[in-house]
Amino acid sequence: MSKANAFYAQSGGVTPVINASACGVIETAAQYKDLIGKVYAGRNGIVGALREDLIDTSKESKKAIRGLMTTPAGAFGSCRYKLRSLEENRAEYERLIAVFKAHNIRYFFYNGGGDSADTCLKVSQLSKKMGYPLQAIHVPKTIDNDLPVTDNSPGFASVAKYVAISTREAAFDVASMCDTSTKVFILEVMGRHAGWIAGASCLAATAGSEAPHVILFPEVPFQEQGFLDRVRKSVARCGYCVVVASEGVQTADGKFLSDSGVRDAFGHAQLGGVAPTLAGIIQSKLGFKYHWAVSDYLQRAARHIASQTDVDQAYAVGAEAVRLAAAGKNAVMPTIIRRPGAKYRWQIGETALTRIANREKKMPRKYISRDGFGVSAAGRAYFEPLIQGEAYPQYKDGMPVYTELRNVRVAKRLPETFTV
Amino acid sequence: MSKANAFYAQSGGVTPVINASACGVIETAAQYKDLIGKVYAGRNGIVGALREDLIDTSKESKKAIRGLMTTPAGAFGSCRYKLRSLEENRAEYERLIAVFKAHNIRYFFYNGGGDSADTCLKVSQLSKKMGYPLQAIHVPKTIDNDLPVTDNSPGFASVAKYVAISTREAAFDVASMCDTSTKVFILEVMGRHAGWIAGASCLAATAGSEAPHVILFPEVPFQEQGFLDRVRKSVARCGYCVVVASEGVQTADGKFLSDSGVRDAFGHAQLGGVAPTLAGIIQSKLGFKYHWAVSDYLQRAARHIASQTDVDQAYAVGAEAVRLAAAGKNAVMPTIIRRPGAKYRWQIGETALTRIANREKKMPRKYISRDGFGVSAAGRAYFEPLIQGEAYPQYKDGMPVYTELRNVRVAKRLPETFTV
Repeated sequence: MSKANAFYAQSGGVTPVINASACGVIETAAQYKDLIGKVYAGRNGIVGALREDLIDTSKESKKAIRGLMTTPAGAFGSCRYKLRSLEENRAEYERLIAVFKAHNIRYFFYNGGGDSADTCLKVSQLSKKMGYPLQAIHVPKTIDNDLPVTDNSPGFASVAKYVAISTREAAFDVASMCDTSTKVFILEVMGRHAGWIAGASCLAATAGSEAPHVILFPEVPFQEQGFLDRVRKSVARCGYCVVVASEGVQTADGKFLSDSGVRDAFGHAQLGGVAPTLAGIIQSKLGFKYHWAVSDYLQRAARHIASQTDVDQAYAVGAEAVRLAAAGKNAVMPTIIRRPGAKYRWQIGETALTRIANREKKMPRKYISRDGFGVSAAGRAYFEPLIQGEAYPQYKDGMPVYTELRNVRVAKRLPETFTV
Repeated sequence: MSKANAFYAQSGGVTPVINASACGVIETAAQYKDLIGKVYAGRNGIVGALREDLIDTSKESKKAIRGLMTTPAGAFGSCRYKLRSLEENRAEYERLIAVFKAHNIRYFFYNGGGDSADTCLKVSQLSKKMGYPLQAIHVPKTIDNDLPVTDNSPGFASVAKYVAISTREAAFDVASMCDTSTKVFILEVMGRHAGWIAGASCLAATAGSEAPHVILFPEVPFQEQGFLDRVRKSVARCGYCVVVASEGVQTADGKFLSDSGVRDAFGHAQLGGVAPTLAGIIQSKLGFKYHWAVSDYLQRAARHIASQTDVDQAYAVGAEAVRLAAAGKNAVMPTIIRRPGAKYRWQIGETALTRIANREKKMPRKYISRDGFGVSAAGRAYFEPLIQGEAYPQYKDGMPVYTELRNVRVAKRLPETFTV
């Protein structure tokens, strides 16, 4: 195999540790100097490739690349951009190949979730059809934890840790005030289709603290009466109730609770409104004083309290992607394997992208408690190892030091522009 | 002075470090064994005294008391309960004195904000009138930072640190996605009457990062057009815009923006809805894709990222309160004094409660930038020293270890009950 350049892009919603995967790719590529030349990153993800807007990562210092280990969000920019099917827009795929060819790129590392895995697979298939030798490796990433095959997805564990800690802290707050003030606190967390993030809040509970008292999953249809009963019982027993609700909670007819009528001053439906919607139901039916929080981007950007396990795994899948490429693999993805045994141990495996693309892993029913409002012992055993270790960033003047790269542009080689 | 017991109570909204003040009171009282017998805490604040529901803090281990240094919320319970004026409800004040007398309590330590300072002063005045020898010392605490005289109030600095870090992290997230996704992110923070917390978000900005681009203070009347212009310009210049809004933002006619029409599915006005209200305005007038977060209790319970400076000061005012009592002082409050000079140095002072009660310190105009949408250099210089140092808690199994006390009840000595 002759020496060629690599392309790396971040895709979809960013995470506290996606840059650790980037660091794994870039540092490991440097160990294969006979195979891999430069690592070019797409500015703003795959659209950077379509626009021939490439970043030369070799222009960054080693220290800056190392700084990615403790920097949240997407250091090269990410995007919400789904390539359409080959039939619908073959031109986009051909453009990708043209850009890769122009820059002698034969390694394609795509760091994303399920949609991106599908794109990665298609790019691999098309390059083969077109006779262009490209190895496409997908690097897993999603806070939603909904990728199949892999035991967990990098990014999720840090969000899980943040949500569990935030739930415990808020529970202490509510518990200390409930005698004369707020009785019900609702925390809305991300997870449009799967309840993994909401489920992880179960780790807030210990022998001495029962919160969260109610967890609402997208996997369990919302039933108002059962929910209200649980809230009322919790207030009667503990004096207060902490609810953690996934943004994707829906009723039995598949309607998102957040779409159930919350309107702003202009009559617009509000998005991300599960918490206020639940608060409204509680106020009107039970009359309890409530507070609610929507942590939104804070949860997925909270690098200041990332899980060390997550950081290690994010780096490992990035590094492994390069090793897989060096070994001649194509259309594969590194996975995280949970080894058997009471003590948590993990290793990196691999899987074909055909087993990943367009499949969504929801919370299995066995991880949810029988009544549907909590997490089972099996679920807790799944979550707990993932949040181990505090991967603190460095601080300067009381604030975390996050790396901003120079992101030096690679000179264009193609005459035509491509509008995305 | 003969030996007597002390009463300590937590009042109003809790903070990440109010328990550090409790630790300061209890540990320092133990150094005055000839003057101070036991420290009794009110269960759920002052209502614990009214109900004669006292906690014997001597039943806790030294380790548990030390654990308060790293535990958020109110370890003995707090309350939202404002004693009415002496004229309106003299019975309550007389009841307090009766309970104090029954338990030989002659030191009254009240840990709260402005309302509590007023109560503390009244209790001092009434005990004098009734001929009961009581020394009432107020221990400052409020995340709102609105107590006068003291340079800052314990509790605020940790919330400031949390908000500044969260703003920086979310800004990294939005910056990396704005090309194809969210352009405007709005973070709603606490501060009903004063913009200190919103202002502290200015620390998220460094030379390399401009967010937050817009800060909305209760002190600056909200004007929609000026706000929209700022948002549009920020998106044009940076590609995105981060807005930090105080929950107390109001229009020129004194109407809270959060009361401007947001209704839930049942037609109820939603509280804490400044962020969705602003999002609605942005969507309808500018059409940008937006996200919003309301951190609510998370910000004031976030002990996991407390400011070391704040923890030190919270302990110091608790300890000083006991020293003031031992020195025979009455109706006073320890204050934090910022010493002159370029390097931040602080010391503890004292002030009369008559200078504290019922006064509210808003953000001075000189701390707000001329255009009203940001913080001046003077404001930044005020905020920056307060967030120094990371006072991390211990972790076990990936979660912070927070102390739960035994809270052993003191046997009642009064025949009558008192309903609160």
